[in-house]
Parts: sequence; structure tokens; C-alpha cells
Amino acid sequence: MNEQPKLQIIGILHGDIASLDDAPKNFDESTRTGTLEIYPEYREGLDGIVPGQTIVVLFWLHKASRETLKVYPRGDKSRGLRGVFATRSPVRPNPLAISELKVLAVDGNRLEVSGLDILDRTPIVDIKKQLSR
Amino acid sequence: MNEQPKLQIIGILHGDIASLDDAPKNFDESTRTGTLEIYPEYREGLDGIVPGQTIVVLFWLHKASRETLKVYPRGDKSRGLRGVFATRSPVRPNPLAISELKVLAVDGNRLEVSGLDILDRTPIVDIKKQLSR
Repeated sequence: MNEQPKLQIIGILHGDIASLDDAPKNFDESTRTGTLEIYPEYREGLDGIVPGQTIVVLFWLHKASRETLKVYPRGDKSRGLRGVFATRSPVRPNPLAISELKVLAVDGNRLEVSGLDILDRTPIVDIKKQLSR
Repeated sequence: MNEQPKLQIIGILHGDIASLDDAPKNFDESTRTGTLEIYPEYREGLDGIVPGQTIVVLFWLHKASRETLKVYPRGDKSRGLRGVFATRSPVRPNPLAISELKVLAVDGNRLEVSGLDILDRTPIVDIKKQLSR
């Protein structure tokens, strides 16, 4: 398939993680809080999201390389190179990150969340209900 | 942000789910098997994926509407309309689906998997390691 679907950016993250050095390695290791600002034209899609629930958020890691297929997992060279699809590295052909975040508050088109491992000003492309486990 | 990032299609699903009526509602309710065919130029990214592990796969639901922000969850009108971001509906501005699939076999650029709830011939956009829980 030669088609290249275009993503719509539905919002942007406001957080306090300013650099990769400061970012937790994964959302499950993070207690950092921030705000998901959803653009007004998509606000209606938030109806039904309530404080206390966990949501699944897809971010577009706009600063990540899309050209690399092999990485050292977590930067640890002792474990050897591995294919990006066998890792959670941000580096990959489509740099989409999946985070499970706890909703602390909902205010119109803004969701306050905790559990962030994502840089400030990262674009948001989707939000989903978490499957019950 | 007016930028619209373009997705690269990294492969395609070969499965036996031919219509939405035949699809399980979610991957966690499915035992259906199929094959992820990853295009040769991305094959190297699979190195390190082994049978028995569970992988997270992102599909682009190319047949889903991108124009709708409110849906009846699971088609059940008694529960009222809800914002798509509060659901797992395929309908949403960026119709990305997240599946957790068990790897049954790896053969070059083809991964045989189980747990599918996705239509045959759906494009694949990413594969990640599952976080340990």
C-alpha cells in the first residue's frame, strides 16, 4: 500500500518534562502530572470521561527519529541492538506513544492527568477507554 | 498545530474476519488467529520478537469514519451517546486500534498471532513490546 494516511492533531500536552533526560522511561514508572488540552473542534469527543478513570492516550512523538529500525533498549549497549518493534523506544517509523493516564480533573476541553512520561508540547492524536483487566 | 503527520504503513493483516458483523468487540475477547505481514523494508525492526510473547500492535482502521465524535457504545442505544474518546469505538478522528496479540510463530517478515479483533487486510502502523504488569 502506497497510501500514507494523514493524522489529525486533536490536542497538545502541557507538562513539566522539558527534555528527554528528565523523562521517566515509561508511564508506569511516572507520577508526573500535566494537562491534555484538546482543541475545541474535538471537545465533544470527551463526553463521558470522568475523574478517577484511567484513559489510554496516543501521542505523536514529533521529535523522534523515523529512520532507525534498530536500537539499544533503554540505551543499554550490553544487551545488543534490537529491532524497534521489539521495544518501547520512541524511535520507530511511526513515533506513536501509548500512555495509560489517570484522570484527575475534567474542565471543558482540558483533562488534568497523572502518569506522564511525555515531553511538554507533544501533540495528542487519540484517547480511548482503558479495557478492564 | 496545523501540521498533519503522515503515517507509514509498515504491513498488512491477513486474517479470517471479513466483515464487522463477524468481528469480536475487542482483542481481549478473541481467540482468532492471523498473520501480520510486515513489508520487507521494515523487517529488521522485528528482530528480538519471539514466539510466546505478547506484542502491542497499532492498526489503521481504514474503513472507519473519521467524522463522528459521538457514538452509542457497543451499539447499545439504551446507554445514550458518548464521546468517542470515552469509548473503544473504531470511529474517531484518527482510527487507530490498539491490540495486544500473542505471537505464535515468527517466519522472516511474517508474525503469526492470536487474539485478533481486526478485519482482514487492515494496515499495520506500529508494533511495540508489551509493558510487564
